[in-house]
Amino acid sequence: MNDKTLVRDEDMEWLELGGGIKRKVMAHDEKMMIVKVAFEKGGIGASHSHPHTQASYVDSGKFEITIGDRRMELKGGDVYFVPSDVLHGAVCLESGVLIDVFSPRREDF
Amino acid sequence: MNDKTLVRDEDMEWLELGGGIKRKVMAHDEKMMIVKVAFEKGGIGASHSHPHTQASYVDSGKFEITIGDRRMELKGGDVYFVPSDVLHGAVCLESGVLIDVFSPRREDF
Repeated sequence: MNDKTLVRDEDMEWLELGGGIKRKVMAHDEKMMIVKVAFEKGGIGASHSHPHTQASYVDSGKFEITIGDRRMELKGGDVYFVPSDVLHGAVCLESGVLIDVFSPRREDF
Repeated sequence: MNDKTLVRDEDMEWLELGGGIKRKVMAHDEKMMIVKVAFEKGGIGASHSHPHTQASYVDSGKFEITIGDRRMELKGGDVYFVPSDVLHGAVCLESGVLIDVFSPRREDF
């Protein structure tokens, strides 16, 4: 077990991704990864898929989320869930933060 | 893929667990589960372990979190990460909400 099990937000640095999006990888091991993603209004997470299962929590803001052929406007307190290999994307309608959890770990982050 | 991929908070019911704690299972498949847990001040998640890996996001409130031999006070915006089979527990210092993600799914919830 490493010592990265208790993680204060202010101890982690944002990585700017461009397009009004930035992220912090908060914690991970090979089985799981938890990531904070901040969007400015109009920021777009383009439609994509990956073999990882993903559970996401809308911490704040408002987002139009598309998963497969379903689309919904979600706000702070809501959740979305992406099974393995299903196309999904996000459009930020009001600036806010998503908490994305992946299993297994994303090796591309 | 089931239709439980886009989940509004207000559509899900709390399950009262007693001791000032209630939870909502927000979404899951066999690989992953995302659960919202609300604590009143003084609520205690007794120390326990499970083979599932767990990533948790502190949505709000203040909690004393213990993982293995480490202990820290965490607040809204912070994260904790529990590797498989590591003892962990929580004491709620100010009422709030945790978002717990498990992989694989908890079959006991």
